[in-house]
Amino acid sequence: MFEEVYKVRFYETDALKHVSNTVIVQWFEAAREPIFKLFTPDLNLDTWPLILANYKVDLLKQIFLGEVTIKTWISRIGNSSFGIYQEVWQNGHKCSSGETTMVHFNYQNSCSEAIPENVRALLEEHIIAGE
Amino acid sequence: MFEEVYKVRFYETDALKHVSNTVIVQWFEAAREPIFKLFTPDLNLDTWPLILANYKVDLLKQIFLGEVTIKTWISRIGNSSFGIYQEVWQNGHKCSSGETTMVHFNYQNSCSEAIPENVRALLEEHIIAGE
Amino acid sequence: MFEEVYKVRFYETDALKHVSNTVIVQWFEAAREPIFKLFTPDLNLDTWPLILANYKVDLLKQIFLGEVTIKTWISRIGNSSFGIYQEVWQNGHKCSSGETTMVHFNYQNSCSEAIPENVRALLEEHIIAGE
Amino acid sequence: MFEEVYKVRFYETDALKHVSNTVIVQWFEAAREPIFKLFTPDLNLDTWPLILANYKVDLLKQIFLGEVTIKTWISRIGNSSFGIYQEVWQNGHKCSSGETTMVHFNYQNSCSEAIPENVRALLEEHIIAGE
Repeated sequence: MFEEVYKVRFYETDALKHVSNTVIVQWFEAAREPIFKLFTPDLNLDTWPLILANYKVDLLKQIFLGEVTIKTWISRIGNSSFGIYQEVWQNGHKCSSGETTMVHFNYQNSCSEAIPENVRALLEEHIIAGE
Repeated sequence: MFEEVYKVRFYETDALKHVSNTVIVQWFEAAREPIFKLFTPDLNLDTWPLILANYKVDLLKQIFLGEVTIKTWISRIGNSSFGIYQEVWQNGHKCSSGETTMVHFNYQNSCSEAIPENVRALLEEHIIAGE
Repeated sequence: MFEEVYKVRFYETDALKHVSNTVIVQWFEAAREPIFKLFTPDLNLDTWPLILANYKVDLLKQIFLGEVTIKTWISRIGNSSFGIYQEVWQNGHKCSSGETTMVHFNYQNSCSEAIPENVRALLEEHIIAGE
Repeated sequence: MFEEVYKVRFYETDALKHVSNTVIVQWFEAAREPIFKLFTPDLNLDTWPLILANYKVDLLKQIFLGEVTIKTWISRIGNSSFGIYQEVWQNGHKCSSGETTMVHFNYQNSCSEAIPENVRALLEEHIIAGE
């Protein structure tokens, strides 16, 4: 499991005085960075190896100015795609959860590719069942 | 069906030279404005009547600088909640689709409330089956 | 003068119920697109010809949900750099104004370059003094 | 001087593979939080005491994926307004600097108000000359 702590940024709130629903996927992307690094340790943009296929987010409780913790697990590993499960916590409450499907992808020929064995082994260390 | 046309804004792209996945939910929220107005024609923030429960987005094709069209339908009407189905089109291709669940909500007492009959009738006019 | 009309997007507001100060430079960038096109009509990213050197924004009046108009003029043309002056209007009031300095730039060798004569002529058509 | 360290978020980059110019004012706002707390330690939105009058940003060097440090000083203290000077550093280089004018403001009657003496004393501790 990976964990990131963020201070809510003022511009991330909206006129309802809570964090905008649109911000959750921004935090989730930012908190996936350690997973990106399993695939591309130097974050080289010219050979970026991942594309996002879909996400799904539940907003369980409003989030306000203050601090949030984002928890990130691998939820599923397929041949070329894998799932990431994430949660947002604030003040001891789970406020949001989400699932993202990423695909190991070759941007040059626009094709998905099998996840390399060494990366697969690294992903397995973060499988949610293992928590 | 509601339709909005947006020019992709340069800051909405990311280092992969396409539109960031995080932008789709921003466009979807912006394109739901006509639905917000069915509930609150003057968009009065002090009695804002809706909260977002969840969303789910499929990214089917990369989106690039240029123009996009967002199409919005009502997909489901429950007692207090309803579903919105949306699509992003660019150059004749459906590039993304998504489903959002909104709840008729009272922010003062943090409770969901039945959708008023007159609003329900308005929502029904935009049901996707009717397209 | 170039003019763009935007509906304020809900996520562009913040917890003070007005548009976040951080959004003005986003609108200004979006409204500079016609100027980008004077330099690169097809918006080709591989030979992108401009870099931003500085901006300066005055917030004169709070901006709220609703519609805004962004007006854009050329304020100054130097050898390799030029100035852009922009305003945000809402409900008949000038709410914000700003000045941005752009530089004609070669990203390959990280050097500024003289503005081509044909582009200079196009820029001159939008000089603010000519309004 | 206040200091915040941020990892650049992927969505903060743009199609030129660097951080979008529009992000600098977002980081600057986020990094001003300790100053907001000098005025309102609990960040109470109902009595929010500050409004932004203007900002001015110089982009000195492109910023890329990685880590940035934001440094924040008080540059000037007037009767009701004050200046904040901020810098973005990456890999030992100053990449951006900016000056923001904030006004002690009463949102109920839309008037500026003198900075309270106790807050003025706190601000003075962070004056840039004192660094």
